[in-house]
Amino acid sequence: MKNFSSLSSLIAPKSVAIIGASNDPHRIGGRALKYMLERRFAGDIYPINPKRETIQGLRAYADVSLLPACPDVAILALAADQVPAALKELESIGVKNAVIFSSGFAETGQEGEFLQQQIARVAGSMRVLGPNSLGVFNAENNFWGTFTATLETGWPLPGRIGIATQSGAYGAHMLCAARGQGVGISTFVATGNEVDITVAEVIGWMAENDGIDIIISYIEGVRNGPELISALQLAKAARKPVIMLKAGRSALGKQAAKSHTAALAGDDAVIDAILREFGVIRVNGAQEALDIAKVATRGIYPQESTLGVLTVSGGAGIIISDDAEQYGVALPEVPSDARARMQAMLPFASTRNPVDCTAQALNEMTLTGNFGIEMVQTDLYSALLIFFSHAGGVASIVPGLRTELRRIRNARPDVLYILSVLASDDVIAGYEEDGFLVFDDPGRAVRALGAMGRLGRSFAAGESSLPHDLPHFFLPEQTQNEAMSKRVLAEAGISVTRDYACTSVAQAIDAAAQIGYPVVMKVLSSDILHKTEIGGVLLNVSSVEEVSSGYETLLTRARTAVPDARIDGVLVSQQIGQGVECIMGIQNDPIFGSMALFGLGGVHVEVFKDVVLRRCPFGVSEAHEVIRSIRSLPLLEGVRGSSAVDLNALAKMLSRLSVFAAQAGSRLRSVDLNPVIATPTGAWAVDAVLELGEVQKLEESDLGVLN
Amino acid sequence: MKNFSSLSSLIAPKSVAIIGASNDPHRIGGRALKYMLERRFAGDIYPINPKRETIQGLRAYADVSLLPACPDVAILALAADQVPAALKELESIGVKNAVIFSSGFAETGQEGEFLQQQIARVAGSMRVLGPNSLGVFNAENNFWGTFTATLETGWPLPGRIGIATQSGAYGAHMLCAARGQGVGISTFVATGNEVDITVAEVIGWMAENDGIDIIISYIEGVRNGPELISALQLAKAARKPVIMLKAGRSALGKQAAKSHTAALAGDDAVIDAILREFGVIRVNGAQEALDIAKVATRGIYPQESTLGVLTVSGGAGIIISDDAEQYGVALPEVPSDARARMQAMLPFASTRNPVDCTAQALNEMTLTGNFGIEMVQTDLYSALLIFFSHAGGVASIVPGLRTELRRIRNARPDVLYILSVLASDDVIAGYEEDGFLVFDDPGRAVRALGAMGRLGRSFAAGESSLPHDLPHFFLPEQTQNEAMSKRVLAEAGISVTRDYACTSVAQAIDAAAQIGYPVVMKVLSSDILHKTEIGGVLLNVSSVEEVSSGYETLLTRARTAVPDARIDGVLVSQQIGQGVECIMGIQNDPIFGSMALFGLGGVHVEVFKDVVLRRCPFGVSEAHEVIRSIRSLPLLEGVRGSSAVDLNALAKMLSRLSVFAAQAGSRLRSVDLNPVIATPTGAWAVDAVLELGEVQKLEESDLGVLN
Repeated sequence: MKNFSSLSSLIAPKSVAIIGASNDPHRIGGRALKYMLERRFAGDIYPINPKRETIQGLRAYADVSLLPACPDVAILALAADQVPAALKELESIGVKNAVIFSSGFAETGQEGEFLQQQIARVAGSMRVLGPNSLGVFNAENNFWGTFTATLETGWPLPGRIGIATQSGAYGAHMLCAARGQGVGISTFVATGNEVDITVAEVIGWMAENDGIDIIISYIEGVRNGPELISALQLAKAARKPVIMLKAGRSALGKQAAKSHTAALAGDDAVIDAILREFGVIRVNGAQEALDIAKVATRGIYPQESTLGVLTVSGGAGIIISDDAEQYGVALPEVPSDARARMQAMLPFASTRNPVDCTAQALNEMTLTGNFGIEMVQTDLYSALLIFFSHAGGVASIVPGLRTELRRIRNARPDVLYILSVLASDDVIAGYEEDGFLVFDDPGRAVRALGAMGRLGRSFAAGESSLPHDLPHFFLPEQTQNEAMSKRVLAEAGISVTRDYACTSVAQAIDAAAQIGYPVVMKVLSSDILHKTEIGGVLLNVSSVEEVSSGYETLLTRARTAVPDARIDGVLVSQQIGQGVECIMGIQNDPIFGSMALFGLGGVHVEVFKDVVLRRCPFGVSEAHEVIRSIRSLPLLEGVRGSSAVDLNALAKMLSRLSVFAAQAGSRLRSVDLNPVIATPTGAWAVDAVLELGEVQKLEESDLGVLN
Repeated sequence: MKNFSSLSSLIAPKSVAIIGASNDPHRIGGRALKYMLERRFAGDIYPINPKRETIQGLRAYADVSLLPACPDVAILALAADQVPAALKELESIGVKNAVIFSSGFAETGQEGEFLQQQIARVAGSMRVLGPNSLGVFNAENNFWGTFTATLETGWPLPGRIGIATQSGAYGAHMLCAARGQGVGISTFVATGNEVDITVAEVIGWMAENDGIDIIISYIEGVRNGPELISALQLAKAARKPVIMLKAGRSALGKQAAKSHTAALAGDDAVIDAILREFGVIRVNGAQEALDIAKVATRGIYPQESTLGVLTVSGGAGIIISDDAEQYGVALPEVPSDARARMQAMLPFASTRNPVDCTAQALNEMTLTGNFGIEMVQTDLYSALLIFFSHAGGVASIVPGLRTELRRIRNARPDVLYILSVLASDDVIAGYEEDGFLVFDDPGRAVRALGAMGRLGRSFAAGESSLPHDLPHFFLPEQTQNEAMSKRVLAEAGISVTRDYACTSVAQAIDAAAQIGYPVVMKVLSSDILHKTEIGGVLLNVSSVEEVSSGYETLLTRARTAVPDARIDGVLVSQQIGQGVECIMGIQNDPIFGSMALFGLGGVHVEVFKDVVLRRCPFGVSEAHEVIRSIRSLPLLEGVRGSSAVDLNALAKMLSRLSVFAAQAGSRLRSVDLNPVIATPTGAWAVDAVLELGEVQKLEESDLGVLN
């Protein structure tokens, strides 16, 4: 697995030079300096500016060659066309890291793209952040190498959350919104145009860094699939949630991304599968990302989110129940003994979960504490949500409520506590001191709790268990006919129908006898991949006579329909009985490599697009997960009196296919097993198309990103 | 249509008595009085309290009999057991309206239910709000007949929005949250246990009231279907959005509702269909409700929400595009001439929609104005969203930005303007003064804009156009066999297969000859509704011999399977060729009457629950809408080379069925046309079950609601 520690000298440097440093603390060249002075960066700061003796009170240097020591990081706040020369000079004195604030590169058009290519060339072994980067900060060592104006309106709250973003502007938006939502950010890196350092590397560094528990990321396009995968693997292994805003999910959004930037929008279904594989929580906006990060700060990741709800409004209880169902949060019932004790305290309380202690709780404050303690002591709830609405903001109620909340928390400190109130900021701060996360809207808290369960399941799941007996198979150079394709797949342990390639009627009759009637006959040609359309498939062939006449029929049809086709003969196949038609396939994605696909055949895949992807290879248990995640699963489990199909056979076959694809690597363009017929006693690929030939990896050209 | 003006003397009274008035302004009996004094209610206030001469400075009366005049409204703040006697006295002096704050009725159990029934009896012609009601207020005339403590923390902002709620506590939560979201509320009515006045009536009153433009409602259960329908019809006709939180949508939520209250949770699918019919915007929580209400205050309801986006962050532009697709908001492209002019102003701007004027807009403020004006002057956008993130909160930027925003707005005042910024409350207030609605999270604004389009379409749609030639048909007393059922349906103009009920082989042979081979034969018995299960259906009967043997086979199978069944003979039917199997049906809902159902047969309805409901009756164009809203619509439109079925025939049939059901009324329990086979040339009900017998309307018993 990749190691991302090389970014440490960039993100946690001991010294920094600012090329184009400005005396004006509100200019791009002045802000980073001002921030570092204000927050007392402990390392050395070298302002570079040929026109001044001092900059913001620090000694300025006319040129990097005059520096007393080689800085860990150089920040470039120059016009775009001055950047290449400056970089070259920095490289020559051995600077390891450059942060390029300057814009005017690939994001602005061809001329800028040319400049950006120059950067890549002159940088040598130097690591470059940007260009078009809003910069980087690290509150832990007070390195504030960024020119974001958000810091002028306030510092980030203390916290252990990192933001890794391609877009500086949207990153800054999240940073600013974090303060409003009471979420602390310790580290921020905006990768901009990514001429070198990618957002995936930053995620990887954050996954490895002890000061960061939670990673929020904004991504427009992925430059390097394996790097992102390494980063996500590290984060998962370290039990650090990755909360990701992958923009360009919709057709409209993709179009917007394309019109603005050359970033690789990529196939959203593929990226979605990758994110799902590593338990990444994909979100739609900053508010959702920060809600989830806020709840994740408690570090409580149950394998199933179970919620106890205690309200002063039964109506709110129903709405929270609706939310819980929507977001996959369970509301286990309160056990009868605890219910009896609560009922004794307040006869007209509703003591099922959600528990309603009614407005009486406002008169009799201890009810809240007593009810809450009863609930958490059942050990049934990973989280307790107390809904107090506006009453939690009323001055006469706050002190008493805080006492009760502390009592509950002391009784069971390991529960995730949420308080839903409408109150002023200082009142909220008090509740959060008591260990309750405050949300005005309970639905948003429940949505975040749902994410905790998904994280918990992901953290608990082990590595994919691949089969030990990896297959040996011979992969031809070029696309082959069905018989050959099936032979290759069979060698790889994938269940295909038993069949014989025949070049004469006599062979066909022999084959049919071997297989047993009825059989299927198909024309065999690597030039005719879609046989059904030309009448090239005969089903229910039931006698020697039918085999004989069928043989001639197929050859005639093939010659008529595709006169130039090379006809290899006729395939005689085992006929599988009644079953459910599935499809399995492989698509070799230019960024992430082989992706396996599973779905139900016919309208389910064609009309309803009910397919699931997963990166290859994966084991049988992951294959089961894939199969179980299609919407049409009930059809495999048996409906209207039909039996369930052999899901184990399907899962084994899908896993084998994924292993085959991973081993075949970039020479395998695609596999199409359509249909795979699944019956209660097995599953067989009835048709198979293997497309061979080298897959072009997407070039990592110089790309501009949005801001 | 019902007239709801009778509630005016309750919601906008000229005088009010408070029974159980308290001198302590923080007690339930003291708050309403305190609020009215503080806000100077212009009418007369009569505190009733036998123990004091004055209450909060007003002359108190020992008893209602001593009042100098009969008040429009009496508020009861008494212990539950004192309420019936007090009501009786009020009724005797001619008080028209009572608001019962007291709890301890049906919501607490049997004893309370008994008390509640007493109230209903003694109230006579008096209108009663509650019991267990948080009360009512009307900011327009400063009638504050409520004891909600939220008003202690601040008055509602001025506005033209009404809240009609069953739950007082959740209503108060919305009221308090409204202040936080900058939404003004003018009127609030909490109906509580609804011994008399229902939330539907309140919605109706608000729909008729000139002071209210927008209605937010929280409903747990509907007591009176026709009343709710009248209210929603009025609101739609008056172009007033109804934004509804119908709690208990999920299985968990319904369970919570049931455990807490006797309110009728009802069938959510039925209520959902009713809400959709009248363009009600159904929401999941207070925040969403208030976001939509806030945007609706501009009164701009386009038939399609078209959005122009202007950002300083291309990344935000992509995310907003994703949001737009999710919420059904279109982003029309900027025309090329306008693009050219913008490009001339800022060469590296991205001038497709979303338009990105980059961080340059922060240096050159007029860019924002010029770009915005270019966009709105295209007349393509019903709304313009400007994303300025944290920059919109920076003191040095605010004044310039406000100038630009005003310029845009003056150029086109009729556009809905949204500004997404992170700023302090006073800065936000300034932007809102300039005519921009401020949202920190742009996704929430886009969601609300999607709702504006749905409202616009609903307001523009006319009344349902029913066929002029209403059918005459004879409806038997009891459930009949298939032949009879089909005859009734055919009389009502519903397309059924041509068939003959036969009581002898000879008749059957004759019938088959009339229809033409092949035919279908089925056993005919009103005691055997599910014929397929007993082998009671023969398809593809193709000759006289097959008719003859089939006749005997069917009778034998029927007698064997259901020995006691009365066998009426055999039905010989037209066999419809290949087609798509649909189902149509009628369910007579105890609250809303006949509901028509449409879906695709087989797994689509059984496994995927892909069905749509609509209240009967409705016209052909509404039937088209119903058919077009199923997910499996593509299968009717033709997939994989098959032709589209005759959608007009299906729609006509569905509309006819709905008219039939409406005319048949409460004697029709259900209709089940399964399957209806749709082909490119028509649609026919192949089987029909009519269930007859009086449907019991749900009793409006005395129910408690949540708070």
